[in-house]
Formats: sequence, structure tokens, C-alpha cells
Amino acid sequence: MVHSFSYETGYILLTLSVRFNLKDFTLKKSNGCLVLLNAEIIDVFLHPKSVAVIGASKKFAKGGFRITTNLITNNYKGKVYLVNPNAEGKLYGLDFKRSILDIEDDVDIAIFYVPNRFIPDLLKDCIKKGVKGAIIEASGFEEVGEKGLELKKKIIEITRNFTKIRIVGPNCMGLSTFDGDSDSEEKEGFFSGFGVFSTFKRGNIALISQSGMLNGGYLMHIMTKYPNLGFRYSCSIGNKTDLSEIEFLEYMLTDDTVNVIAIYLESFKNPRKFIDLCKKARSMPNKTIILLRGGVTSQGQKAVLSHTGSMAENARLINGVIKQSGVIYVNSFYELFQYARSFSNMYKTGITFPKKGNVSFVAGSGGAGSITADLTMKYGLKLPILEDKTYSVLVDVFPDWMPPNRFAFVDIWPAMEKAMMNKVKPEVVTIQVYNALLNDPNIEGIFNMLFCSKQFRALNNIDEIISIAEKSPKPFYFWLVGEAKEVQRISNQLGEHHLPNFPSLEEMVKNFSILVQESKNTNFS
Amino acid sequence: MVHSFSYETGYILLTLSVRFNLKDFTLKKSNGCLVLLNAEIIDVFLHPKSVAVIGASKKFAKGGFRITTNLITNNYKGKVYLVNPNAEGKLYGLDFKRSILDIEDDVDIAIFYVPNRFIPDLLKDCIKKGVKGAIIEASGFEEVGEKGLELKKKIIEITRNFTKIRIVGPNCMGLSTFDGDSDSEEKEGFFSGFGVFSTFKRGNIALISQSGMLNGGYLMHIMTKYPNLGFRYSCSIGNKTDLSEIEFLEYMLTDDTVNVIAIYLESFKNPRKFIDLCKKARSMPNKTIILLRGGVTSQGQKAVLSHTGSMAENARLINGVIKQSGVIYVNSFYELFQYARSFSNMYKTGITFPKKGNVSFVAGSGGAGSITADLTMKYGLKLPILEDKTYSVLVDVFPDWMPPNRFAFVDIWPAMEKAMMNKVKPEVVTIQVYNALLNDPNIEGIFNMLFCSKQFRALNNIDEIISIAEKSPKPFYFWLVGEAKEVQRISNQLGEHHLPNFPSLEEMVKNFSILVQESKNTNFS
Repeated sequence: MVHSFSYETGYILLTLSVRFNLKDFTLKKSNGCLVLLNAEIIDVFLHPKSVAVIGASKKFAKGGFRITTNLITNNYKGKVYLVNPNAEGKLYGLDFKRSILDIEDDVDIAIFYVPNRFIPDLLKDCIKKGVKGAIIEASGFEEVGEKGLELKKKIIEITRNFTKIRIVGPNCMGLSTFDGDSDSEEKEGFFSGFGVFSTFKRGNIALISQSGMLNGGYLMHIMTKYPNLGFRYSCSIGNKTDLSEIEFLEYMLTDDTVNVIAIYLESFKNPRKFIDLCKKARSMPNKTIILLRGGVTSQGQKAVLSHTGSMAENARLINGVIKQSGVIYVNSFYELFQYARSFSNMYKTGITFPKKGNVSFVAGSGGAGSITADLTMKYGLKLPILEDKTYSVLVDVFPDWMPPNRFAFVDIWPAMEKAMMNKVKPEVVTIQVYNALLNDPNIEGIFNMLFCSKQFRALNNIDEIISIAEKSPKPFYFWLVGEAKEVQRISNQLGEHHLPNFPSLEEMVKNFSILVQESKNTNFS
Repeated sequence: MVHSFSYETGYILLTLSVRFNLKDFTLKKSNGCLVLLNAEIIDVFLHPKSVAVIGASKKFAKGGFRITTNLITNNYKGKVYLVNPNAEGKLYGLDFKRSILDIEDDVDIAIFYVPNRFIPDLLKDCIKKGVKGAIIEASGFEEVGEKGLELKKKIIEITRNFTKIRIVGPNCMGLSTFDGDSDSEEKEGFFSGFGVFSTFKRGNIALISQSGMLNGGYLMHIMTKYPNLGFRYSCSIGNKTDLSEIEFLEYMLTDDTVNVIAIYLESFKNPRKFIDLCKKARSMPNKTIILLRGGVTSQGQKAVLSHTGSMAENARLINGVIKQSGVIYVNSFYELFQYARSFSNMYKTGITFPKKGNVSFVAGSGGAGSITADLTMKYGLKLPILEDKTYSVLVDVFPDWMPPNRFAFVDIWPAMEKAMMNKVKPEVVTIQVYNALLNDPNIEGIFNMLFCSKQFRALNNIDEIISIAEKSPKPFYFWLVGEAKEVQRISNQLGEHHLPNFPSLEEMVKNFSILVQESKNTNFS
């Protein structure tokens, strides 16, 4: 009879179970607890049936208050228990328990928001209670040096190397599951962080991050900036003392509701396994992984050491992992979410990924066209030569004094002037030009550079373009210029129709180029 | 007696006049007209005493209507004449003349908004009338091929190689001079383009651009996006058949109201002269030139040919000019204006340019700090080690469980938590931390990464930070994250105090790094 499996033994058995497709394989331990497979424990963490907030509080400024608020106001469907020996009265109609041991029912997950020195004893209680997992949000572990390292050692001892209870964190912002939209009747979710989200949409993006700010303030920023962008999970993994990017990534690959996995790391817990999982994702038709790494340079490494306690990793190792894994690699938080948006849209709408990078421009400005033409070369895209049929449509609608180009750069303004002179409605010309371009087999997508002005609404024909773009099997990307208010109005309108627009020409070109990159990596049709 | 100087002869005489410091040197021609020095003719173009709008119209959709509206509604102080043989009645109380020859007074500048085929004859009239310069906004010249080239040739003949009249354009969006703010009593300006500006501020930036869109829609976008950013001139040079970036740049170097010169080019009219002018600017204490080039790649060159008719230039020539000129080089329209804003602020506030690139961070997020630390290395900046005095201030305000770093990365959150536990007001700690960093001689500027949330206003202490930043001789750069509305509110507040904030960490770091670059180029104190 085995008293307790070491983590490694569990992992070997798990690997075997995966190899032989033993999906429901679990190990019963002597004390009656289950050692769960990684995918199973992550499932419990993201969809718990019951949670206890350890450090729950009625004081507004306390994290324990905000975590409880997040659970209750977002209609978390499981049971919530509040634990705080010093609190009295009720919060949201719930009593405070003095200890997790005072709870009669089973507790899947304990969410810790208490100072780090109390954690070891509270963790012992959780193990006694049979709690499956703990989310520890307190900081002050290896990131602060000697004292924190001792605390970490204690936790490893108490949990018998994480066989008695699994841990997310410490030094993290919790896990979030988006089950419904914040503005719909099905509003529902599991939000265990202390950042309160008032606006969110369920979607196909999962975020795995070693910076809690990304799961909190920045995600809040992105969700209010792109109100139509939906998320499925947001996982803050902190110092990843036990569970890490590996287990969460593995889970996301098996979860059909997730298409895009956006990851921020300050270290690789297991580079070889990370590469294997990324390679696996590349062979799956509906998964894209986007990675941002912090701590690549020596100055960055100093910063990550004091942030999540991550030790310096050689830049060559980091670059090797990025290259071998074949992930889409980004340079900033913003790019991480912008790329996630681009892929999220592609999967949601089922648009064909461009394969060759042949793109056409429709611009109201020659200058914007010139800069974009330079950018297409920088990012490996091409301006194809138009088919005869396409070209002849353009010759018809353009004036003699400003004939169209033979290559796919359409400066549409002269055609509009000709239309006005001939008393033809501008939208007729717009529709003709767009249909001609879309029917050209050499063209895989269209960059639209629109001048937005209240006075000239009649000329940019946004309604007609949106209606064509929505039915188009080829991606339409937008760049808007003009009066800020009008730009905002049209930008919102595009957002409602899930048509992406970009603040700069370079971002537009880059976001298209990653679609081509991803289409080459995988076997997407 | 010399009948007419060729352009080249004029240029040689001009060069001599500059060499011998003959500032008021002008050449009298046989017919009584003056051949003006370049700086003098540009001065007439940007500050004309009287203008005629050729092609003025009462029809709202016509450019000639909008140009007239721009002149009248923005309180252009010179005289305005309207020319259109087909128009009747009055516009803004002004009669229509059938020809420029019907105007009794002198006309400095004629603004052309007529189809290109009418231009040669109208230009002959202008010469007869003694008009000094013409701004030709019509397109359809060398950019459309053979026919346009013939038209260009005709114009060169009629103007006797631009000795009879000087020309801006064709294929341009006019010139703008900002003499006052749009919302002030002194609202005043000379706006000769057909893009109508409703909101503008006078400032220290001059824009010289070969894409009219930059002078029109994009400038409008930037002016509404950054309402506190001021411009002095906006010059659209189009195909630059006669006057080009050379003459405008030369003028900007002599104009004390201009500190920042933002340039977009699709070709170099005279690379050697351009390099010389840029080098000259580098030795001047209050001038910075920022350049964007279109048509660098073969695809970009195809686009510029059809845009401004500019012929392909070898990428090595382009790179050589950029390197030798020592200008700040940018990659996008947005960067052009963002860098212009950074320098505009520096000159306006008289803040010291950082020389070594030693920068400190104050962040509410470790992840943002890690990414920024990586970015500082990418852009050649350094996180210096704190002086003992600075460090001991931080040790005092930070809790034992999360001591501060020895290097200049301050993750301020734990200090805030300690303050709250000890019932110390958060702003007291904020002020202590900022003053300690500012007094550290190793630190040349501060990156501020602020979490913006309505609920946590008490914690980011924006009023105190602004008050310190405003008095600081070292630049404060901001990056805001959090709820979109609160980010916008604080962003506006920073804008009012001329404190720059950036949508991404990379932009923040890049914009600081160009200050260091410029400080090395010049002898700024």
C-alpha cells in the first residue's frame, strides 16, 4: 500500500494514462483523497463546485472583500464560504466561519487573501479538510529573498511536495472563468481575483500570465477598450511554485471553448514540455498560442527576480524555446491582446487564413498607401498584379486624368470625383471596386484606409463596406483617420461587426502578417 | 541687362548672398518683378498679405468653397479675392472676379483649385498680374504618366523655370500658418488647404509633408487626439515641381517660433543640401528634425510613383542620407507626431535633456516593470543603482516582507500597503518616494506606470505626482492602465499639464531614448 505518491510518480502515471488514453484514470490515496490528473485539477480550479475565501472581510479596502464581491455579484454558481476568525456579522447574507474546518460541506478550492506568515497553518487546515486546491494571492515569497525562500520550503513540506493539495500562486491575482457576458441575462462567471470586473464578454481567448496586473488592471483596460472582445479564462500563475504554465496550457489544448491562448512568462518552468505542447497546438486546427516573455535582458532579469522570484534564463535558451515552439511571439502587453483579438476574430467568423500574403489596399490617401506598401515588404506581404477582369472594372470607374494602377493599390478618391461629376452615387462605385477586388483570386485580404469626417460621410460609404466585409471570406482590416469623434464612431461600428481596425498602419500590416505566419505553421484550410 | 535669371543662376547668387551674409539681397528683374530669396518667398507663402482663390465656389462640396471658408472663418488677416468666371452672387460678402486680372490691388499668392487642364492659361494671367507665388492643389501631373508630364513641361515653360512665379505643389493640400488657438480670442491663421480645421493650437511644431493627407485628415486626427499639442506651420509640398522640402526646411531653421520640424518625404529633391541643413540644425540649440520616408522598398516605390510621381531612389542612398543627416528617423505617421510631441514638450518646458539614459521606474505592477526593464536595454537606457541616501528613504517606507530594490525600479504597491496598515496617508509616501528619486543625481527621468481605477483613486495620488512632475527639471513619462474611462480622465489631466503619456510601454521607452539620442547629437545643456 502506498502512503503518498511523490509528484514525480504521479507525473509518470499521468503520462502513461495519457499515452494509453485512460482519460478517467485517477489514483486513490490511503487517506481517501484523490490524486488528480493535471487536467482534472485545473478543471477543478477553473470550475469549482465550492470555494472558501480565507481572509474574507467586510472592509471595502481589503482584498478579501473584493474577492467575495467578485464571486457573488458575478453569479458564481457554486457555494461560497467565508473564513475569518476576526470578522463578525454577515457579508452578502453569508456568515463568517472561524476556520475552514468549521465548514460542514466539501470545499473544492480555498482562495487565500491573508498575510504570508499565516499561510502555513491555514494550509494545514485545508489539507485536513480535504480541500483539493489553494489559490494563494499573497506575495512575499522567493521574490523577496531568504525569508521568502524559507516560507516556500515550509509550504513544500506541509503539502508533501504538492501531493496533499495543489497550489496556484503564490503572488498571483487568482483565476477567472467567463461563463456569460456581464450585460446579458446569463451573466455568470467564477472570479477569484481581487480586481473587480464590471464589464466582460465570454469569448474564445484564454490568458495565462505571470504578471497579475495583466489578469487585473490591464485585462480590465482591454475589455473596456475592445468591448466586443471575449475571454474564456484568465489565469494568474504568479510564482508558480506548484502549478504553472505547463498544466494550464495542457488544459487549454483540451478545452474546445478556447481557440487563442495568450501567455506572459517571466521564466519557463519546463522548456522541453512547453515546446512539445506548442508543437502539439500547431497540429490542431483551432488553436493559436501567442507568447510574451519578460526578463530576456539582464536588466529585465533583475526586475523579474524582484517580481516573481524567477531566476535569470540565458537569452539563447529563451530564443531557442521561442523558435522551436513556433509560437507567435510578441513584444508588448498591447501586442499580446491585439494579436489575440486578430486570431479570436478569425476563429469566430471562420474566415480563411491568407496563405501567400497577397493583399490589396483601398485608400483615400496616397501617402498612407506609400507607407503601407513599404510596410508590406517589411512584413513579407505582397501587392499582387490585378487580373485583367479586375483591372478593367477599375479603368471604367477611374477618370482619364488619373487612371488606376495595375497593382492592387487603389487610391479611390479620383473614382469618387468622377462619380460626382457624372452624378453617379459614390456607393455604387465603392461596391463595384470592392466586389472586383474580392473576386480577384490573387487577392487574399483588403486593407481599408478610410478618411472619417462628419462632412464627408457620403464619401467613405462605411455601411456598404461593412456589409461587403461581413459576407467576405477574406479578411478586411481597417485604419481610420480624420476627426477623432468620427473615427471613434466608425471604430465602434466596426467593432460591433467584429471588423478589426488598428491605430497605426504598422499594426494593421503586422496583424495581417501573423495570419499568414500561422497559416504556414498549421494545416488550416 | 539680364532679361531673366535661370533658377540655377538665382541659386548661385543666393548662395553667395548667404555666404557673405547679404540678408536683404534681392535681384531686380527687367519687368519690375522681384526674384526673391528662397527664405523670402517662403515667408510670402506662409504670411501673405493678400490671396486670390482661383476656383472659389459657393457649392459646399467644392474644394474652392472649403478653402474660402478656411480663410474667412479662421480670421486670416490679409485680403481675400475670389476668382471664378462661372460663379455669381457673393460668398462671405465677397464678389467673384472673372479673372485674376480684374483684381485692382496686388496679390501675393494665388491658390488654385481648378482641374489641371485650366492651369497653364490661369498661370499666364497670374504672371501678368505680378502674383509672387501659386499654390496648386490639383493633381494629375507626373504621377499619372505621359499626359501629366506634358502638363508639367508646359508649366516650366510658362514660368520660365519658375523665375516668373514660384510654385508650391501641384498635387498638394496647401499651406497653413497657425497664428492663434481656435478657442481663443486671438484665433487667427492662414489656412489655404481644403481640409477644414475646427480645432487647433498654435505651438512650436512645423510639418513639411509630401502627403496631403498628413496635412489634412491626419493632422486633424492628431489635433483632436492631443488637444494641447500646438503647431506653427503645416506645409503640403506635393509633387514639389518647384519649391520643396529644401526651401521650407531652410526657412524653418531661421524661424524662431519653430523648434520641431516633422518631415514626410517620398523623395529627396537635393540629398546633399538636405544633409547640410540637417547638420546645421544639429548645431542649433532649439531645433530638432524628425523624418519619415515613404518609398524605401520596391513596393513602396511603386506606390509613391502613382502618388506624387516620385521616382525610385536606391535604399542605400536613402539610408545614407538618414545616417549622414543625423535626423531622428521614424517608421510611421503616428511616431512622427508622437516624437514631435515629445520634443515640443521639452522645448516648451525647458526641461533638461537626459544625457546618459539613466531612468527610474515607479510602477504599481511588477510585470510592467519587467517588460520595461527589457525595453530599456533594447533602446540603450539604463536602470542605475540608487545612491545610499535614496535607498534608505525607500527602506523606511517599504515593509520588511517586501524590501525595495537597490536598483531604480520601485514597485510602490507594498509601500502603500504598509502606509495603510500604519494609518499613514498614501500621498505622504508617494511624495517621499518621488522626492528621493528626483534628488538622486544618477536618475535623469522617471517612468510612471499608474493603475487607474475609480475605486482606488486614493492610491495613485495623481494630483501629487503631477504637482511634483510640473516642477521637476527631469522628464516624467507616463503609462496608464486600468478602467478605460479613468485612464481617459487621468490622460486628459496629464495633457492639460503637458505631461506626456503613452499607449504602450515600448512607446514610452522609445520616446525617452530619442531625447538621449538628440542630446548626444547636439550641444544642449
